[in-house]
Amino acid sequence: MATPRIEHTKVAVIMAGGRGTRFWPRSRTSRPKQFLNIVGQESLLRQTFTRLDGAFAPEHVFVVTTSDLAAETARLLPELPAENILIEPEGRNTAPCLALALVQVERKVPGGVMAVLSADHWIAEPSLFLEDIDTAVKHAAWTGELVVFGIRPTYPETGFGYIEADGQGPVRKVAAFREKPPMDVALTYLASGRHFWNAGMFVWTLADFRAQLQQHAPAVLAPLDAWVESGGDPAQLKSAYGQVPEVAIDVALMEKATEVAVVPARFTWSDVGSWPAAMEFQEADAEGNITQGQALLLDTRNCAFFGGRRLIAASGVQDLIVVDDEDALLICHRDKAQSVKKIVERLKAEGREDLL
Amino acid sequence: MATPRIEHTKVAVIMAGGRGTRFWPRSRTSRPKQFLNIVGQESLLRQTFTRLDGAFAPEHVFVVTTSDLAAETARLLPELPAENILIEPEGRNTAPCLALALVQVERKVPGGVMAVLSADHWIAEPSLFLEDIDTAVKHAAWTGELVVFGIRPTYPETGFGYIEADGQGPVRKVAAFREKPPMDVALTYLASGRHFWNAGMFVWTLADFRAQLQQHAPAVLAPLDAWVESGGDPAQLKSAYGQVPEVAIDVALMEKATEVAVVPARFTWSDVGSWPAAMEFQEADAEGNITQGQALLLDTRNCAFFGGRRLIAASGVQDLIVVDDEDALLICHRDKAQSVKKIVERLKAEGREDLL
Repeated sequence: MATPRIEHTKVAVIMAGGRGTRFWPRSRTSRPKQFLNIVGQESLLRQTFTRLDGAFAPEHVFVVTTSDLAAETARLLPELPAENILIEPEGRNTAPCLALALVQVERKVPGGVMAVLSADHWIAEPSLFLEDIDTAVKHAAWTGELVVFGIRPTYPETGFGYIEADGQGPVRKVAAFREKPPMDVALTYLASGRHFWNAGMFVWTLADFRAQLQQHAPAVLAPLDAWVESGGDPAQLKSAYGQVPEVAIDVALMEKATEVAVVPARFTWSDVGSWPAAMEFQEADAEGNITQGQALLLDTRNCAFFGGRRLIAASGVQDLIVVDDEDALLICHRDKAQSVKKIVERLKAEGREDLL
Repeated sequence: MATPRIEHTKVAVIMAGGRGTRFWPRSRTSRPKQFLNIVGQESLLRQTFTRLDGAFAPEHVFVVTTSDLAAETARLLPELPAENILIEPEGRNTAPCLALALVQVERKVPGGVMAVLSADHWIAEPSLFLEDIDTAVKHAAWTGELVVFGIRPTYPETGFGYIEADGQGPVRKVAAFREKPPMDVALTYLASGRHFWNAGMFVWTLADFRAQLQQHAPAVLAPLDAWVESGGDPAQLKSAYGQVPEVAIDVALMEKATEVAVVPARFTWSDVGSWPAAMEFQEADAEGNITQGQALLLDTRNCAFFGGRRLIAASGVQDLIVVDDEDALLICHRDKAQSVKKIVERLKAEGREDLL
């Protein structure tokens, strides 16, 4: 058996700055999706953290978020050292976020291998997930390649980017990153067996990530390196961060890098992009109803009740999504969940900041 | 023109002791139907009082209720003299209630003509209502007959008693009181033109009411007369009232009395017996929706939203009754409104006194 090039410490960087309006009224500006327990008993952020249990030491887990979300992040992750919450001065897409994580994590865990995760995704099988992470970590450490996870598509999604893979096996060469496709193209991707959803989950060594950024996206790294060199004063970060181009890591780096591999995920994944998606992963009763909170259901089928402290009594209804919050109530046909965005826009137009 | 036999003062007695569970979650033990603004902007009790405006002096309006409802009754009717709220020691059906009103009102307004009204009914045309009241008052005062209002049936209701009338014109002879009929009989009543719903609204002089009670239902009156004779101590009323048979005025008196007339109502009436009935009398928007409170509706038809302080957002739904209360939420198909009773029973069985 071969010996690793070098002993690497596994580091997880959880991106937790997301906003999102598709879970209104449960999600609000100050209460984004990662804080919600819309799937399972705990918040998606907490589940993301717990999923790492036993494989990543808490002091090697870092969460990047904005200052307004830091307190709730800390409250949900009491085991996390306070200094492991990395504050973005503002949301500027994933490339600045990950470069900021890089310059802070490499000081604390030099020689680490970094797994990039999202705080608001759902994964069914934590053990398969950790095994796949290990596959990616080993590959990244041995080869120096950037590794991306690929999710095998289950339907022709047009809202995700795709990864085209070459070869077979647990780690494959990336042939190309493909932009969000139109439906006809998505259908060929679904059929090909070579295309995977890009879920924005990556594994790379800190050293290789730095080297690749320096080569392909120096503008992303330079302002943050300068900030660190000048002492890393938190008060100066805002100005430095503002100089980093606002761009996704896929565009800034992944599509340009040549040393990229994909690990096809064996775990079941969802970005939990809408209320119906949140329903999909919960156990329904015999009539197909999903209930959070207290509900009294008579002759009610295929509904989801995301309740709060109030009792919800339903009779003679079907195919509804009901979300009961302190100051707002959503009642939506399952097939109309995309209209939640419209509702939020209307509230914005009406100046109902109190409900956003 | 003939001169009246005697100058009569018009007195209204509003029965406001009702409970009822059909408007759960809006109605509760301590918040019965008469306190709810489920039709119109004000409570049904307040609307009943306001309807008398200009025809009955506030000091000649009496409200009979139970002690637990007295404070809210007073709050809703600030113009009403406090002593005009007559307290029933307990709910014992309408005969004891009206006998109690009699013995108290006849001391305050001797020689009055008493209109018996319900606090939780809805009437569309207040001016027609007052004209019909005047017709009944005049008839009662001139003839000494007991007058009952008859509502012309609009569908074969099987939940009401009926009045069979003889003759034509604004005041008719009562041929018979008919019990709640089975559907086939209700259909013949609907077709006959001679049958009216008994809405429990009466007009009679205090003297004639006393005389008729003494003749046909002496047991109803005797304990209360004895109580008055012994000084009318409020502390003694409970014991006296407990001796009055628990019976409806229709059974105790109206079905036995021979000197009874019916005034066919020209006004539109409803006992507002269910959520769909409450919808019937409100103005709907172009899509057939009725809204109380704040609502944001997208592609939503033929729904009723009885909201509270919360915003209700609905999308892609139809034929729903939504009732949003502080601690409970009802979502019910319009055709399943009778299941509200079942819901209340289930809550009772589960010991949820907090929601009853």
